[in-house]
Amino acid sequence: MIKQLSVNVDRLETLLHDFAQIGKTDNGGVTRLALTELDKQARDLLIKHSQAAGFKVRIDNIGNIFIRRAGREDLPVVMTGSHGDSQPRGGAYDGIYGVLAGLEVLLTLNDFNVQTRHPIELVMWTNEEGSRFVPAMMGAAVFTGKLAVEQAYLIQDRDGISVKEALEQIGYLGTDQVQNQPIKAMIEAHIEQGPILENLNQTIGIVKGAFAQRWFEVNLTGLAAHAGTTPVTMRQDAIVGMAQCITALNQLALKPSSGDVRLTVGMLTTSPNSRNVVADQAFFTIDMRHYEADLLQRLETELRAELTVIAKQLNLQIEIKRVLTMPVIDFDPKCIETIRKATNKYHYPAIDIISGAGHDACYISTVAPTSMIFIPCVKGISHNEAEAITRSWCEAGANVLLDSLLTLAT
Amino acid sequence: MIKQLSVNVDRLETLLHDFAQIGKTDNGGVTRLALTELDKQARDLLIKHSQAAGFKVRIDNIGNIFIRRAGREDLPVVMTGSHGDSQPRGGAYDGIYGVLAGLEVLLTLNDFNVQTRHPIELVMWTNEEGSRFVPAMMGAAVFTGKLAVEQAYLIQDRDGISVKEALEQIGYLGTDQVQNQPIKAMIEAHIEQGPILENLNQTIGIVKGAFAQRWFEVNLTGLAAHAGTTPVTMRQDAIVGMAQCITALNQLALKPSSGDVRLTVGMLTTSPNSRNVVADQAFFTIDMRHYEADLLQRLETELRAELTVIAKQLNLQIEIKRVLTMPVIDFDPKCIETIRKATNKYHYPAIDIISGAGHDACYISTVAPTSMIFIPCVKGISHNEAEAITRSWCEAGANVLLDSLLTLAT
Repeated sequence: MIKQLSVNVDRLETLLHDFAQIGKTDNGGVTRLALTELDKQARDLLIKHSQAAGFKVRIDNIGNIFIRRAGREDLPVVMTGSHGDSQPRGGAYDGIYGVLAGLEVLLTLNDFNVQTRHPIELVMWTNEEGSRFVPAMMGAAVFTGKLAVEQAYLIQDRDGISVKEALEQIGYLGTDQVQNQPIKAMIEAHIEQGPILENLNQTIGIVKGAFAQRWFEVNLTGLAAHAGTTPVTMRQDAIVGMAQCITALNQLALKPSSGDVRLTVGMLTTSPNSRNVVADQAFFTIDMRHYEADLLQRLETELRAELTVIAKQLNLQIEIKRVLTMPVIDFDPKCIETIRKATNKYHYPAIDIISGAGHDACYISTVAPTSMIFIPCVKGISHNEAEAITRSWCEAGANVLLDSLLTLAT
Repeated sequence: MIKQLSVNVDRLETLLHDFAQIGKTDNGGVTRLALTELDKQARDLLIKHSQAAGFKVRIDNIGNIFIRRAGREDLPVVMTGSHGDSQPRGGAYDGIYGVLAGLEVLLTLNDFNVQTRHPIELVMWTNEEGSRFVPAMMGAAVFTGKLAVEQAYLIQDRDGISVKEALEQIGYLGTDQVQNQPIKAMIEAHIEQGPILENLNQTIGIVKGAFAQRWFEVNLTGLAAHAGTTPVTMRQDAIVGMAQCITALNQLALKPSSGDVRLTVGMLTTSPNSRNVVADQAFFTIDMRHYEADLLQRLETELRAELTVIAKQLNLQIEIKRVLTMPVIDFDPKCIETIRKATNKYHYPAIDIISGAGHDACYISTVAPTSMIFIPCVKGISHNEAEAITRSWCEAGANVLLDSLLTLAT
């Protein structure tokens, strides 16, 4: 029986600790926005470790960093990796965990002197968060041809600095041609950024794909009126309408037949927004996500009908606009099975899971067989300085990544 | 049988039209904020008409204007009047109708050469709206000793100009001692600023008093979470909590046992207020008004209980603070009966009504017998450029004011 390889969790924790110093916040989080000086420091540190270990480093035209551990044969590459940028006052694991778990895998293969048939390539994608430059997942979008690099270059931050200028400023406007290399598979490790795995006492999420997503904007129009002089029965109160709509949407989401749809009203505004004036305007957004496109379509029909009835009952005008439509993403069955087998070898408690968030892997899945490995994060908290993982989750994710990459690269 | 006197409605409409030019907006409304150059123009015009008619004009230390038509005897004065300032983009009738109806009454008495026993005094109160300088009803508050004049002087607008400086700039920092004169009664005419009279086909509202009022601020605290990765069942969503609270408050207000309580959620904010983040914070205000103090107390107990249950069910923290408490105002029974008799003489359809809004008369009622006469405004719209009245309502209110003042001054 072959001894199961394991990563060096001490080294991985040290790496995570070292990278967490770059942009560290007072509350133990990280602010390391894309293409800033701090992002450059994280990039430089990754390259320093990689070159010390003898890996070949390339930079493409959008600043994605490719770190290759050579294979025995000139075969399509097996890729892994994630992003190094963070949200403003974000956490120390979102993105960077996948990068450093990948680096740890490569270093472990060095430790045990393992030769793979296929090369394995660790990638640090540029600007996944989209906090400084919109859109998010920019490096992966350019790499997969979904966003033209010349278009990406022109995008500016709030200070008017363009992506191209920022890449030049930090010295990461690369010239290496990586985009068209054959890819055998891509596995991205990431924290779940949600509470499911921890709640169910699971260590690994085997990611089958990502939710389809629809965004709506709803406008309700009533009549402004004096709060003291207008009987409640004679009002056309846009805030009451909004409240009834949000309550109805929440009930719709909680129906068993709605199958764990992720339905969120996260943004709202009202007018005139004054304590003693009945509101004539209310605006709110709906973010709705599910893995089944048919269900999402049925729920859209239902929500349109329900909100329209509420508006009519309250004598309000309603406008419901769909403003974003993203299809379901199905990850590759072979990649998923590879992760499942790896998980079984280590006897980690694992479940299949659907990603509710967007990830670089979602773009890569459009050009190569792809899947993801999720580890839990404490209380599901992410995009927050309080983001945390345990040592055992940290090790488990990297071990499953190690075995999956080894299987795919053999 | 004595012929019933009537005002000259053509003259009153001309006066309303002329004053509506001072601060006229593109949409037919008025912006005439307190103690501005436009307020000065309205004040000057009122004084010009008054002096031309032989009335004595006095200005007190907060800029209230007192226009006296002498009586036969040196008896306590019968007062009327309202305010000349408007909301930003407000209407052409709120306040100024009561001033000009009062002026029209004095001019009618001149026309018919009527001598009253008591003097009758028309007042234009300073800064009723509170739009430029907070608090509202400032002139009446100072006149009745509820606000110290030295304190009022220090209050600044957003540009740092104090009330005293503004009074000096427009030349209305008066020195006449009016505050301690004996007052027999005060009757204020005003548009209803609500929809009740028009809805019930009534021409006159006989105002019995003003609602007690309580303001609350509610804070809900949950946990911010990713809209895509967090199942709806695992959330602590402050926006869902707020929506359920507002829906419950509206249902509470509509209960028959809540007796036409005026309950309004008019202002709200949420955090982080982002489309794809479950909100961890929601703040909203409650404005609750009723004529029965006991009922208001019971409703406060009920709303606190109901909102607390909702918060608990949704795993949210809740804080409910009462931030304003205003008692019921009961107007003087004799003044009310005087108005009722006047209304009957002209056969105007009339009902008793409670003011849901604050008025200068509410302050005056603390120092002298007081009541108010309401006329309808179209669709109840007020504090809005679309504010409108009909010629017949305009005439009816002034006629009832004429007869009431005559009765009180005889």
